Amino acid sequence: MDPEAVSKAFVEHYYSTFDTNRGGLGSLYQESSMLTFEGQKFQGSQNITGKLTSLPFQQCQHHISTVDFQPSGPVGGMLVFVSGNLQLSGEQHALKFSQMFHLMPTPQGSFYVLNDIFRLNYA
Amino acid sequence: MDPEAVSKAFVEHYYSTFDTNRGGLGSLYQESSMLTFEGQKFQGSQNITGKLTSLPFQQCQHHISTVDFQPSGPVGGMLVFVSGNLQLSGEQHALKFSQMFHLMPTPQGSFYVLNDIFRLNYA
Repeated sequence: MDPEAVSKAFVEHYYSTFDTNRGGLGSLYQESSMLTFEGQKFQGSQNITGKLTSLPFQQCQHHISTVDFQPSGPVGGMLVFVSGNLQLSGEQHALKFSQMFHLMPTPQGSFYVLNDIFRLNYA
Repeated sequence: MDPEAVSKAFVEHYYSTFDTNRGGLGSLYQESSMLTFEGQKFQGSQNITGKLTSLPFQQCQHHISTVDFQPSGPVGGMLVFVSGNLQLSGEQHALKFSQMFHLMPTPQGSFYVLNDIFRLNYA
């Protein structure tokens, strides 16, 4: 599997789901998954989805600036590092963000998100 | 070992070495290590150190804003996600950056950097 294609497809899927149907992100996480969102920690698909769906804005749009990826070691994982802009509906200025994902292979030949760290850069 | 203490000690060591003796960073990387610096890829301690020591500025100072960390899975690694400002000597404005490290344990009970991804955010 081409890591560049996987990481780009993941990024496209993740943010389009985030912007149109945030609850649908839950299937990308498992019980061992971790999210650190602006320093707050959440573990497990349910807690992570709970956080993402309760963010204090209804509509948003992610615009991706850069996507970097690297294999993460002996168990076939992949690190994906994203930077971009987050436009909240009704806000004049977009917020810069960076986010990293650690994707791990599933027995079905797909990937799930083991690690997810998100930070706004307040630009 | 306390992951928070490890990640904070690593971050302090990494950036103080970067700002005072960039060539000294080589010992933190191994042959399998990868650096993606503003989209450019380097593999192995020697190539990575070569890139870091040939950056087009002599003096710089990193000011760290946030440090997040998570365990990275079954082999005892740790993900460290950093945001901050990079002040180049002679420049009026600092540059925002974000950077992620994947630290892996060594047989000696220390850590080395397997993955390193760096991006400027042009704020």
